[in-house]
Amino acid sequence: MTYEIFGESHGPAVGVVLDKVPAGFALDMEEISRQMERRRAKGGLSTSRIEGDVPEILSGVYQGKTTGTPLCAVIKNSNTRSEDYAKTQNLPRPSHGDYAGHVRYKGANDPRGGGHFSGRLTAPLVFAGSIARQFLREKGVEIGAHLLQIGRICDTPFDPVSIPEALLRELQQEAFPVLDKAAGEAMKAEILAAASEGDSVGGVIQCGVSGFPCGVGQPGLDCVESVLSRHMFAVPAVKGISFGLGFDFAGKRGSEVNDPMRVENGKVICTKNNNGGITGGIANGMPIVFQTVLKPTPSIAKPQETVDLSAMENAELVIHGRHDPCILSRAAVVIESAAALALWEMMSGGNL
Amino acid sequence: MTYEIFGESHGPAVGVVLDKVPAGFALDMEEISRQMERRRAKGGLSTSRIEGDVPEILSGVYQGKTTGTPLCAVIKNSNTRSEDYAKTQNLPRPSHGDYAGHVRYKGANDPRGGGHFSGRLTAPLVFAGSIARQFLREKGVEIGAHLLQIGRICDTPFDPVSIPEALLRELQQEAFPVLDKAAGEAMKAEILAAASEGDSVGGVIQCGVSGFPCGVGQPGLDCVESVLSRHMFAVPAVKGISFGLGFDFAGKRGSEVNDPMRVENGKVICTKNNNGGITGGIANGMPIVFQTVLKPTPSIAKPQETVDLSAMENAELVIHGRHDPCILSRAAVVIESAAALALWEMMSGGNL
Amino acid sequence: MTYEIFGESHGPAVGVVLDKVPAGFALDMEEISRQMERRRAKGGLSTSRIEGDVPEILSGVYQGKTTGTPLCAVIKNSNTRSEDYAKTQNLPRPSHGDYAGHVRYKGANDPRGGGHFSGRLTAPLVFAGSIARQFLREKGVEIGAHLLQIGRICDTPFDPVSIPEALLRELQQEAFPVLDKAAGEAMKAEILAAASEGDSVGGVIQCGVSGFPCGVGQPGLDCVESVLSRHMFAVPAVKGISFGLGFDFAGKRGSEVNDPMRVENGKVICTKNNNGGITGGIANGMPIVFQTVLKPTPSIAKPQETVDLSAMENAELVIHGRHDPCILSRAAVVIESAAALALWEMMSGGNL
Amino acid sequence: MTYEIFGESHGPAVGVVLDKVPAGFALDMEEISRQMERRRAKGGLSTSRIEGDVPEILSGVYQGKTTGTPLCAVIKNSNTRSEDYAKTQNLPRPSHGDYAGHVRYKGANDPRGGGHFSGRLTAPLVFAGSIARQFLREKGVEIGAHLLQIGRICDTPFDPVSIPEALLRELQQEAFPVLDKAAGEAMKAEILAAASEGDSVGGVIQCGVSGFPCGVGQPGLDCVESVLSRHMFAVPAVKGISFGLGFDFAGKRGSEVNDPMRVENGKVICTKNNNGGITGGIANGMPIVFQTVLKPTPSIAKPQETVDLSAMENAELVIHGRHDPCILSRAAVVIESAAALALWEMMSGGNL
Repeated sequence: MTYEIFGESHGPAVGVVLDKVPAGFALDMEEISRQMERRRAKGGLSTSRIEGDVPEILSGVYQGKTTGTPLCAVIKNSNTRSEDYAKTQNLPRPSHGDYAGHVRYKGANDPRGGGHFSGRLTAPLVFAGSIARQFLREKGVEIGAHLLQIGRICDTPFDPVSIPEALLRELQQEAFPVLDKAAGEAMKAEILAAASEGDSVGGVIQCGVSGFPCGVGQPGLDCVESVLSRHMFAVPAVKGISFGLGFDFAGKRGSEVNDPMRVENGKVICTKNNNGGITGGIANGMPIVFQTVLKPTPSIAKPQETVDLSAMENAELVIHGRHDPCILSRAAVVIESAAALALWEMMSGGNL
Repeated sequence: MTYEIFGESHGPAVGVVLDKVPAGFALDMEEISRQMERRRAKGGLSTSRIEGDVPEILSGVYQGKTTGTPLCAVIKNSNTRSEDYAKTQNLPRPSHGDYAGHVRYKGANDPRGGGHFSGRLTAPLVFAGSIARQFLREKGVEIGAHLLQIGRICDTPFDPVSIPEALLRELQQEAFPVLDKAAGEAMKAEILAAASEGDSVGGVIQCGVSGFPCGVGQPGLDCVESVLSRHMFAVPAVKGISFGLGFDFAGKRGSEVNDPMRVENGKVICTKNNNGGITGGIANGMPIVFQTVLKPTPSIAKPQETVDLSAMENAELVIHGRHDPCILSRAAVVIESAAALALWEMMSGGNL
Repeated sequence: MTYEIFGESHGPAVGVVLDKVPAGFALDMEEISRQMERRRAKGGLSTSRIEGDVPEILSGVYQGKTTGTPLCAVIKNSNTRSEDYAKTQNLPRPSHGDYAGHVRYKGANDPRGGGHFSGRLTAPLVFAGSIARQFLREKGVEIGAHLLQIGRICDTPFDPVSIPEALLRELQQEAFPVLDKAAGEAMKAEILAAASEGDSVGGVIQCGVSGFPCGVGQPGLDCVESVLSRHMFAVPAVKGISFGLGFDFAGKRGSEVNDPMRVENGKVICTKNNNGGITGGIANGMPIVFQTVLKPTPSIAKPQETVDLSAMENAELVIHGRHDPCILSRAAVVIESAAALALWEMMSGGNL
Repeated sequence: MTYEIFGESHGPAVGVVLDKVPAGFALDMEEISRQMERRRAKGGLSTSRIEGDVPEILSGVYQGKTTGTPLCAVIKNSNTRSEDYAKTQNLPRPSHGDYAGHVRYKGANDPRGGGHFSGRLTAPLVFAGSIARQFLREKGVEIGAHLLQIGRICDTPFDPVSIPEALLRELQQEAFPVLDKAAGEAMKAEILAAASEGDSVGGVIQCGVSGFPCGVGQPGLDCVESVLSRHMFAVPAVKGISFGLGFDFAGKRGSEVNDPMRVENGKVICTKNNNGGITGGIANGMPIVFQTVLKPTPSIAKPQETVDLSAMENAELVIHGRHDPCILSRAAVVIESAAALALWEMMSGGNL
């Protein structure tokens, strides 16, 4: 299954086309709505741009089941306030895609609300991922994420050797998914502190996958890490990904971090899982664990140095749009969705 | 340009086919040899398996110039000692691809020397990348890497705002590329200490790219970060990648890390480069900077816990093969080569 | 540029997403409408299902220009009469995709009006092709088709050595494009005769392309013939394609049909063009000429032998839907559009 | 499974890399040799350039079985006589890829023996196809071809409703595969007549496939006709393809050519097979039947009009190389091999 996302923040709609969908699968539309609701802004810690985000399925579903032919869904944009952007459309926002996009698209890209670069494009991504997730669930695969770090506050990491499916499903119910509730409260305080200063804050999301079958993947450009990372960096704001122990491998010795293998109930398991469930580019049957870092939302209320592209001179930018001081709680389901699309792509790849 | 690598560690040869090669380009074969020499084991800090590593070009080059049709090169395997592996071929090495590969390939994969999972496969990768690098150089793009961390020792990072081409080319001359020589000496001591205990050590390679044109890339699955990371994880042992400030974004506020923009000599530049030269998934004209973490070589001399796949029982493994206590100094050119292939893929993608 | 078509005949809408669209191109929407009008049924010689066929652009266009990001357009289905199909949905129509589709999609495909197999899906194809055609026109490439054969009646073929752009544009103005008006009248009579008997008739469309640049294409799986044929067979009813002299090559000698080369005004030309402008899989600068055969519309009014898939027994089928006795006059613009998409795919492929 | 062919006619070797090969398959190397022998020139009716054509497998096979990792095989070029070409390398051969290739590759392509455009590249294609054919055979799929037409002589076509596997295997044993032996003798006379005049002759190959499973394929760009045709046009000299009744559909009515359906032994079959086993772009369980036309070998002994590319003036060309007066008897196995690669690509595509 492949996906293609389209749309601009202030255009008529955003949407997605899914291709090579398995046929005859009864979609749980309520579950899709629940997942999309997790991403939707609801005021409070997030932007005051609130959208209904109801996907309209145009094709590929008949009598509640997938037909197997391309599935297109669109989500109307309703609550757009383009006037927020009109005054500043020649002033690219620092650390946004505005300037590089302006060069890439020869100035023809839709600048309103970030256009195609907007976080709004993650709505159809969650829709698509929620479908992939249902296919995976039928195969016994579950995906869940929590906020591992926000600002200076860290959550307890997953125990990589054992990530129960129930825990992953529980995390999906949380508006602010953490393993350590106290850390969660401290994170919220961190976000409010940033918000109160017209600032934003970054963080790390850790994602766990249970039940992914041993033997999926291959060495080289289509290894599990390559496919997952390709999908993760398609999520705006992601600037790094690591698997298992990740960057902590650098300071370690092989004898400390190699994952010993044992036979348990007739099955080969590892008694550690520093590799995050992937060895040689292939899933090895242990839980898949990876971390993605998201940079602080670049749209902040503080004045910033930028340039005026029409006059080609220095300028000051004050952003008046509606923005999240921290995107991470809404991003957890986006990361899970992108992971679902990546994992399903690999599982459905086929090779007789 | 795309590449496809083939071969097994103890088979007749490893090699690569490059497709969509620009026609009429005069290859600098000496430069290719120099790059390959950087990867080649030479004893001392690396494995005692020493190979000539002379690529034989079978197609795609005529009278010293690329023809534009597929370019195939093979590198013979000569110094193979398969007997090192015969005794242990039912004992998958912890943290290696052995077990997952056994499941993936239904036990049919070539187990000798790791087969297709061997680091030996990076020889044709360097060959291919060295060609991509020559194409890039003609367009003013240069790539260089240094060892940012080995064990507990850290090198000085690049200044991301200014990475001179000359510095990158200098790094390519070094057998042990670091910016801070003293740090380099301490790293070597770290490696020798691990080696003396039959152990291995991991590290981080930082890669810098100068001259990559603003406007290459696009948001979504083919963004610059996605393409680079896909190529990086194809390199064995890589377990994480981050761009610019990477995982340090997590603890920061937007106002601290946003990259201010200025007009300088009629050109738009950033006065910081925390985004590592990429915003909105597109190159923004600043140097590209990224970090990859490599886990410690899993093949260590110490006894390890594993399983016997034929008897399906626990077993102890003592590895007698020839292995590197630290792969990073040889891996720098591999990372640069994979980066060259990724960057050239994007630059040559075309879009009238 | 790539395209993905979605939709079912009786679903909410059909549509298309175009990716890798050049940025900043001012679309001529009137011209797109004119092309779509050529495909639209208008009664008379065609089906009485008449649709407005107004494409709604959801993304990828801003202020009348392409943004360069994915362009999605949808066309609402309004005039659907699913009751025509309800009675016969277990009775696959002979020579239609009904039965193979039923097996392929495990019975989950939308059977109403042929679902995703419907000729209605060519509406978004023409929309997409009309955009590709505008990009091509800017590069001096023009595409036009005429009805070379319907039933037993044949039109005059193109002179392959010289196909003026003006002629191609003229053909695009014709509701029933032929080079020989008398042949055209005889063809119409042939169609009416078939229609009056509740029958249908097949034919051949010949397509010519002027101005396609010499040197585009390559030998192997992505040769010009491969790319064009791949796009042509995506058009329902197409069962054969031939280039230049096509199947008549079989009865010829090399000395008769080789295309002699000459220098003319400092340019290399061929004095014959039996190869239809393609040699070695590459465009050689001569007009591209190819023929596609379309089978008679399988939906005919006469009773036919089929099976009842629910009872798994023989059955008789009488089709009451609204169908074209001959699809060719409406298909000319579809063939041109598919050609435009194929040719633009090749021209925009890039290779520095 | 995908394939990539490399090599030039007078370079060190030609070869192929197969990717996504099923693991653990015991290759029948003798059968591969038999298939390659069918393509090999042996004097008499074909070129006097005789090559051993022994493929050397460099990777992807271990202990006689496929490993599942990329399989590379090379075939050395030994009997090259480049001096045949030296004198005429500025004189592109009419109807060859020489001129278009010269433009495409900016004059850098290897001109000796046609370089990458040479029919010699079909040797690795047959090697690759012979492997695909073994995979298909295990699934009950058999492929065979016969010479349907050479010059003015026609063979009896397949009965499309019933193409026994035994007949297909028998055809594979024939050096000159025809269904009607008398027609075969007349064809040989036709070839000798052309050869005696320094001329060449074209023809049509009809290919039949038994046992291909109903339900493989899909509508659109990846339909069975699209995939097969894409692979067929990668074979040099192919200028047209048609499925089932092909171009004869043009003169027919729907009532004549629709394929009636019946239940037979609990299975749905068609009592005619004018669609050549494909409806809606999907295999419908009937034998697959298609025809490809091959133009007369353009390399003929008679003097021809061409141009001198260095002087940019008209010139006469007399070709002294060694060429086949008719390629069809050697091409039958090439067509079958390309078909095997196309069909296996579709069967192994996967979709859970």
